[in-house]
Amino acid sequence: MEAYLDNSATTRVDAQVQELMKKLMDVDFGNPSSRHQKGVVAEGYIKEARQKIAATLKVDPKELIITSGGTESNNMALIGTALAAKRKGNHIITTAVEHPSVKATASFLEEQGFRITFLSVDSRGQISLEDLKEALTPDTILVSIMYVNNEIGTIQPVEEAAKLVHATVPGAVFHVDAIQAYGKVMIRPKQQGIDLLSVSSHKFHGPKGAGFLYCSSKVNLHPIIFGGGQQSGMRSGTENVPGAAGMGLAAQLAYQNFEQKKAHLNELRRYFLEGIHKLDDVSINGWDETADGEECIERRAPHIVSVSFTGVRSEVLLNALSDRGIYVSSGSACSSNHPALSSTLQAIGLDKKLIEGTLRFSFCENTTKEELDQALKALQELLPMLRRYTRR
Amino acid sequence: MEAYLDNSATTRVDAQVQELMKKLMDVDFGNPSSRHQKGVVAEGYIKEARQKIAATLKVDPKELIITSGGTESNNMALIGTALAAKRKGNHIITTAVEHPSVKATASFLEEQGFRITFLSVDSRGQISLEDLKEALTPDTILVSIMYVNNEIGTIQPVEEAAKLVHATVPGAVFHVDAIQAYGKVMIRPKQQGIDLLSVSSHKFHGPKGAGFLYCSSKVNLHPIIFGGGQQSGMRSGTENVPGAAGMGLAAQLAYQNFEQKKAHLNELRRYFLEGIHKLDDVSINGWDETADGEECIERRAPHIVSVSFTGVRSEVLLNALSDRGIYVSSGSACSSNHPALSSTLQAIGLDKKLIEGTLRFSFCENTTKEELDQALKALQELLPMLRRYTRR
Repeated sequence: MEAYLDNSATTRVDAQVQELMKKLMDVDFGNPSSRHQKGVVAEGYIKEARQKIAATLKVDPKELIITSGGTESNNMALIGTALAAKRKGNHIITTAVEHPSVKATASFLEEQGFRITFLSVDSRGQISLEDLKEALTPDTILVSIMYVNNEIGTIQPVEEAAKLVHATVPGAVFHVDAIQAYGKVMIRPKQQGIDLLSVSSHKFHGPKGAGFLYCSSKVNLHPIIFGGGQQSGMRSGTENVPGAAGMGLAAQLAYQNFEQKKAHLNELRRYFLEGIHKLDDVSINGWDETADGEECIERRAPHIVSVSFTGVRSEVLLNALSDRGIYVSSGSACSSNHPALSSTLQAIGLDKKLIEGTLRFSFCENTTKEELDQALKALQELLPMLRRYTRR
Repeated sequence: MEAYLDNSATTRVDAQVQELMKKLMDVDFGNPSSRHQKGVVAEGYIKEARQKIAATLKVDPKELIITSGGTESNNMALIGTALAAKRKGNHIITTAVEHPSVKATASFLEEQGFRITFLSVDSRGQISLEDLKEALTPDTILVSIMYVNNEIGTIQPVEEAAKLVHATVPGAVFHVDAIQAYGKVMIRPKQQGIDLLSVSSHKFHGPKGAGFLYCSSKVNLHPIIFGGGQQSGMRSGTENVPGAAGMGLAAQLAYQNFEQKKAHLNELRRYFLEGIHKLDDVSINGWDETADGEECIERRAPHIVSVSFTGVRSEVLLNALSDRGIYVSSGSACSSNHPALSSTLQAIGLDKKLIEGTLRFSFCENTTKEELDQALKALQELLPMLRRYTRR
């Protein structure tokens, strides 16, 4: 039996989504820009996808820009705001625990003359609103804060941060990278003061190669990809109809029976944490409701568990688990091909030895307790063995 | 019966490609950056796709950057070169008949301080090498010329242009938008002196949302999308595995039995042209081998026919054809949602009245003579009727 516990890296595409996409590749394969019937039909699917996504966020379908994925969404949020607002100011605030698609884009903008402030985080990975307040200047054009951390699952106080930003610098744009949050957390951009919100389809059983950026109608954003003027000129290029429609359906499904799924994930997480705590020399990164109490439940995502194993190297453990059909991640997948230490784990002040022994387990609504049992059993057997062979 | 004659707008995804993509959404759905077995398998599909594409161009798989489509490829070629070479010069040369994804990107760069020269074309849509020679300056960092025009099918003298560019300004990069050429023309970037080459998957029975940019190992290109460092840092973002693998298979298939397919397309084109010439008050835009002789065959693509119908508005004719299940395009699909006049048809000096009565018919290797007969028959019936109702 396989245990796929790497759902924060990517997910299996939902069967209904696959079916819809097949139809759009085989039968309704038109180009939405074509004026004939086949084009009109294709355009209808894009429209429907927008409506489905918009309904999950309670926003206007016109406020959605369909992109090639989360990375493009984050790039567009940052570069698009920088291009639109460069005459207003040159200061951007973000955090030390962002995904590389925010961090590297901020660094690119720094090379282009923008000034970037990276907010530090506490031992749970949370920013401080006081730090944010201090960092804000009249020159600040953009604040970009992730919703759910991709490595340890910590939820940032985005609503409070948004309030602070809008009250302090009314012209600044507030962007949220919600790539690990969408489908797992209920998001209401308009109520929460979020101007821009990035989402990636393949994190919630939609296809890879699709994502979107919610862009409030109040925000002035510049496109970053130019051409035929699709999507009201905001994102040129023939729309990926199967991708967009697949994402739309996956979005709708993600928020169906949402509370039930969330309860299931919370239950899985508790069960897994209890199992992990029975192992020797382990520690949980970020919030741990079994130790910190129920109050922390709303401060962490229900689907991510980051565990540090003393005296074992994560790649060795990862490979040993993989050999048994158990799939987990060391750090986040998007950076795990790089030998560099996780910057999130560094930012929360974790010891280098522990960082090197950290694995991320991530669930989805289809994850079962049997899969968790399989992983826990394997860990129980592997850890003593691997620790014996690890050089001290 | 349907007659889909809009293959330059988009194509049906090949059945084998669909099947492969389904497998990669359902079973081998891993993230190529994940280090476990499921990630390794996914990475293998990306590698295989690169090899398949590289084989069709006789280039190194490492010289391919997988993108979200042709528009991103063109944007990356222009903006990526501009970012990399901005200290070397600020002059870019392109043509008056480029696709909007080149033209609008050039305009964006113009706003950023680059100087753009747009080469004019003759009545067939071809640039003059003398004009190109005159336009080149020591400040020229990039020359971007499309291979096959998307509206009228004219082939530019890319090989001669490349030679001229490299001989005159050795540091300049030569980019070719081959989005309408790939799969229809044999391309050898290394022999032809092409440094960058843009391709879009959905034009040759691959999926939408995928494309690539060939980037010669000699060229210094800057990424335009930043993040996790995928594709050697050249294009961050989780790879669209089904999209890339689907494109790779479609690429391989496109160049299988290539001469046979080309002969079929040439035969279809000749047959269709002969049928068109039997209609009253029509003219062909670009080369017409039935009038210009066999010599022009290598100067135009085999799958595009642009026809101007006197005394009828293209949208009216397009809709009437669509009602009969015949799908064609007015201008190119990517800009046909815009009411503006086709700039290619303007550039070749076509009269406004004729531009407004122009349709593009585009074939693929699966197009049949029966489909062409259906279209010709419909035109024969519709034209006299519609012309009667057109205001003079």
